Amino acid sequence: MKLHWSSRSPYVRKVMICVYELGLADKIERIPSVVSLTKPNAEVMRYNPLGRIPTLILDDGRVLHESLLICEYLDSQYNGKLFPPLLPNKGEARWTALRRHALGNGLLDALLLWRSEIGKPVARQTPEWLTTFALKTRNALEVMEADADALARTPFDIGHVGIGTALAYLDFRFADFGWRTGHPRTDAWMQQFLQRESVVKTTFIDA
Amino acid sequence: MKLHWSSRSPYVRKVMICVYELGLADKIERIPSVVSLTKPNAEVMRYNPLGRIPTLILDDGRVLHESLLICEYLDSQYNGKLFPPLLPNKGEARWTALRRHALGNGLLDALLLWRSEIGKPVARQTPEWLTTFALKTRNALEVMEADADALARTPFDIGHVGIGTALAYLDFRFADFGWRTGHPRTDAWMQQFLQRESVVKTTFIDA
Repeated sequence: MKLHWSSRSPYVRKVMICVYELGLADKIERIPSVVSLTKPNAEVMRYNPLGRIPTLILDDGRVLHESLLICEYLDSQYNGKLFPPLLPNKGEARWTALRRHALGNGLLDALLLWRSEIGKPVARQTPEWLTTFALKTRNALEVMEADADALARTPFDIGHVGIGTALAYLDFRFADFGWRTGHPRTDAWMQQFLQRESVVKTTFIDA
Repeated sequence: MKLHWSSRSPYVRKVMICVYELGLADKIERIPSVVSLTKPNAEVMRYNPLGRIPTLILDDGRVLHESLLICEYLDSQYNGKLFPPLLPNKGEARWTALRRHALGNGLLDALLLWRSEIGKPVARQTPEWLTTFALKTRNALEVMEADADALARTPFDIGHVGIGTALAYLDFRFADFGWRTGHPRTDAWMQQFLQRESVVKTTFIDA
């Protein structure tokens, strides 16, 4: 399989964490790909009309894009019964995992727009947006803090991938935000997450 | 259940189409909610830290947000075996449905950012973004056109909801784009989609 990939994309990192968890790293050829709204990537667009990454090209030529879909596909095809699925099949465990993932992923959506806004010349920035992104981030951290002990007790799944990747992206791009202040339980959980092999091997690099 | 809702949100519309398909309309209390990046909605944020809609509050107080997750939850809890699931349980049917949904939903993500960019004073717009959004939309329509006959032959599922809602949003907010030109198969499929009861009952209204 081929994966349009970047060491800076949090959506790619979610997929790569799953890839390492599933022991699939040697089955995936990574194609370094830079995408942005200012410079669309024609090569990625050959496979994904929306020009976003991660975009996975299966060996039979079919294409999957959107990180959660790729994670679910890989988990269902390659997990076997070695360990609990990264996406629990059904019941409360599934909704809890997907709710956590949605919180982490929704925070990522906000963070990427926030960063893109900050990167504009000041005259092009919309000040209300900047305020809103900070508010959303603070709110999300509050919800994560209330859930952190339960998260720590849950077997590793896509919920951990979603929450952990969002927090790692805060560290990577918004270090000054200081998210750990006031969120000791989330911080404690994150210290464990950051030691996991699949997480270590997918560290963000500003190449 | 209570749903933070708007007649203008395509993500809400996807959920509401599923709600009507599942015969759940009288079980869902709609709470009209206006959200935007310039004016965050404090009431929605009480339930969803990211302040986005749709946000579903279950009768036991748990909260689900992110439209695909809400659709999957409602389908799995309320579909029973009356008809094929809106999210096929597994195998090729599931990947095909979710790929189509990802294409429609990813197009919606681009369209909402595009519209938000167009709504800014010209001095704050980023011209390259406008070009990229138009390119993504043309690309997505090409992929949809190549798939339209297969889509028409597939039993109604979340793939149809995703594609149809994106095209309906193009009609609603980008009528001048003229997406039907050059896409006769997609147009033919869309004419059927627009007659479906769940789609008629969820028409976009610029309230």
